Amino acid sequence: MKKILIHLEADKQASVFDQITAYDAGVDHIIAYGGVAEEDVTNLVYGAMFTRGGEDLRHTAIFIGGSHVPAAERIMSKVQETFFGDVRVSVMFDANGSNTTAAALVHKIAGGRSLQGKKALVLAGTGPVGIRAAILLAGEGCEVCLSSRKLERAEEAAKYIETSYGIQVKPVHIGAREETRQMMQDHGINIAACCGAPGALLLDQDTWSSLPELEIIADINAVSPLGVAGMKVTDNGKERAGKLLYGAIAIGNLKMKVHRAAVRSLFVNNSTILDFSALYELTKTLGE
Amino acid sequence: MKKILIHLEADKQASVFDQITAYDAGVDHIIAYGGVAEEDVTNLVYGAMFTRGGEDLRHTAIFIGGSHVPAAERIMSKVQETFFGDVRVSVMFDANGSNTTAAALVHKIAGGRSLQGKKALVLAGTGPVGIRAAILLAGEGCEVCLSSRKLERAEEAAKYIETSYGIQVKPVHIGAREETRQMMQDHGINIAACCGAPGALLLDQDTWSSLPELEIIADINAVSPLGVAGMKVTDNGKERAGKLLYGAIAIGNLKMKVHRAAVRSLFVNNSTILDFSALYELTKTLGE
Amino acid sequence: MKKILIHLEADKQASVFDQITAYDAGVDHIIAYGGVAEEDVTNLVYGAMFTRGGEDLRHTAIFIGGSHVPAAERIMSKVQETFFGDVRVSVMFDANGSNTTAAALVHKIAGGRSLQGKKALVLAGTGPVGIRAAILLAGEGCEVCLSSRKLERAEEAAKYIETSYGIQVKPVHIGAREETRQMMQDHGINIAACCGAPGALLLDQDTWSSLPELEIIADINAVSPLGVAGMKVTDNGKERAGKLLYGAIAIGNLKMKVHRAAVRSLFVNNSTILDFSALYELTKTLGE
Repeated sequence: MKKILIHLEADKQASVFDQITAYDAGVDHIIAYGGVAEEDVTNLVYGAMFTRGGEDLRHTAIFIGGSHVPAAERIMSKVQETFFGDVRVSVMFDANGSNTTAAALVHKIAGGRSLQGKKALVLAGTGPVGIRAAILLAGEGCEVCLSSRKLERAEEAAKYIETSYGIQVKPVHIGAREETRQMMQDHGINIAACCGAPGALLLDQDTWSSLPELEIIADINAVSPLGVAGMKVTDNGKERAGKLLYGAIAIGNLKMKVHRAAVRSLFVNNSTILDFSALYELTKTLGE
Repeated sequence: MKKILIHLEADKQASVFDQITAYDAGVDHIIAYGGVAEEDVTNLVYGAMFTRGGEDLRHTAIFIGGSHVPAAERIMSKVQETFFGDVRVSVMFDANGSNTTAAALVHKIAGGRSLQGKKALVLAGTGPVGIRAAILLAGEGCEVCLSSRKLERAEEAAKYIETSYGIQVKPVHIGAREETRQMMQDHGINIAACCGAPGALLLDQDTWSSLPELEIIADINAVSPLGVAGMKVTDNGKERAGKLLYGAIAIGNLKMKVHRAAVRSLFVNNSTILDFSALYELTKTLGE
Repeated sequence: MKKILIHLEADKQASVFDQITAYDAGVDHIIAYGGVAEEDVTNLVYGAMFTRGGEDLRHTAIFIGGSHVPAAERIMSKVQETFFGDVRVSVMFDANGSNTTAAALVHKIAGGRSLQGKKALVLAGTGPVGIRAAILLAGEGCEVCLSSRKLERAEEAAKYIETSYGIQVKPVHIGAREETRQMMQDHGINIAACCGAPGALLLDQDTWSSLPELEIIADINAVSPLGVAGMKVTDNGKERAGKLLYGAIAIGNLKMKVHRAAVRSLFVNNSTILDFSALYELTKTLGE
């Protein structure tokens, strides 16, 4: 029986990236829909639920993507409301690649080490990847700070994390790049996870190289200038100035591997829900 | 040569259900279009007609679906107008599943028996399935009544059937469920085909169980409350109170089988037109 | 690794014709987008560039189609701007079939012969096929005239050809069909390439059959009346009245062969750009 993936997203055009990745993960057919509104979801999901019966249901699955994470989250809620009892299919949520990226980022940082009690800073952490990385780092036992150029945005993110996941994260304000050293020193930061926009420099080389408490730096920005001066995108646990560095391509390669493994795992049974924490657990099993 | 199905429908999003079913029937590639307007049809059909030549044309076919049956019928007309001579491909029409459902419903009722001279009532019969079931039951030799809560809607349906198919069907008014027994008694109904909306109860148990002339009851409503109190959706020729009962899942399973067989049959030659009567003939050959 | 073709076009619905042809050329999956605006292109192309790496990039390619050639040309420019360095995929441009048709048309006319110094007339040549045919004929060494019912349109086309390709083409005005003989005589035309609209007669039989200098006539119009009276659509180098004739079906069959070979060639490396001149070179290798 052919493996069919129903791809749903609110963006006008269903993502090329996610579709190619799904085919590379062994999906036989993608039925893709862009421009999906909340009120479209029920019928589309019924089509997935009621065509193949019983054991065969596991050969159909749903992928939710798109660049706008809140719109994708509304689709995700609606999909889960539509299922009942055993009449359901597996679902993967990866709007804007945020879930697979956060899982790869934190897995690189953990790298088989215990992070218990470490002090982590998620720099420029108010976006989807930053928020998810903060939650995963807290789950690994870190004390987590989440920074933004605007304090209220950091506070908002911290509040969302507490309300939704019951996890405490400290919002911090870093108005200008020059303030970063002081902030990191004051908080005794051991881990810096840089989640800034493409081309946004967040950490100067003399800052990170001279902070004695800092042990691990990771950055998801692949576009020059990188988030961390003096890092290379291909750094994959490279030691520089006594710190371990993980660049955007090393993280991105793992992200792709996670994405493909995740799509494959959708078809094992008909009840898998791959949100970011499930994706992180999956990442740990990949042996990288 | 790959079997390609061109899926056309007026709904915003081409049906998940119909696409999964087509893949399960062995189609290699679906080229699906939602939001198809009448004026789009010619170009899309030219694409099917003029790409592969001669013998190879039979590997391309067209499926017309969508929840709005009249819109689908306009697409169907336009498709058939576009063909000329031998330059054509096979076409299946199954807007809202109405054709395959009606074929499965009437085939369950006939069940290898002769229906010649039987008196059949299509309850809540003004929708696409009801109208098609009425025509097929008349074709099996039944005298057919078609009921609605509004007399004018039943009369409209009967008029449509006479004008389009030259078949006489008697429109009857059943204003409230309590009037059903009297109506069935007066007309000596042997067969009740319930075509109501999901969750609409049409026949009380003490009504159907106590009508001596009634022999066969079928119901396409799978959502509780079912159309027939005391029936189970899985009833598949089950005898209860001396009547044979066919529930929505028994009919639905046959419908799926018909749908898949129909899609397969599209690729045997390039000139098959699968409307509801052709689908009914196909259903008879399935040995169920 | 599966061969994936990203199909982009500005028309509301991505062409059935081009998708079937791509599948027949061995593409495993098409990810098709209709209604593509210029501002959509970058993201779609990023999806093709950044999913598969290095050697694997050649298994993804882009096809640009659609009935509106200028809109397709804007998409084409945007696609090429988006690539950088080796991070690119192969691209085929065939809006409205104009490139493959022009290549097939001129290849039929050349037919293994030298056209050096011949005088060619592209009749009704201001459309996409005509303009491309004029350029290809000039490339084969012909002196080319390009006619239109409106002189300014012919002049515009000639100017575009000179500006864009540095090639001189003589614009000529043929107001009524009766003026064609005189014009052809005056210019000593040896080759007539008819690029008129479907159903538009361009050359009377007593005109072309009595012009002693005329050697080769080709016509892309398959709809009666054909562009050339007394020609058959299936003429494939048929000699009539001492002239060699190539009809629309002979040209169309070669066009299909070119189209399929072109799609196949996209996946040989990740840097092929199939514009009309590359398609013409490809056509010469097909041994027909």
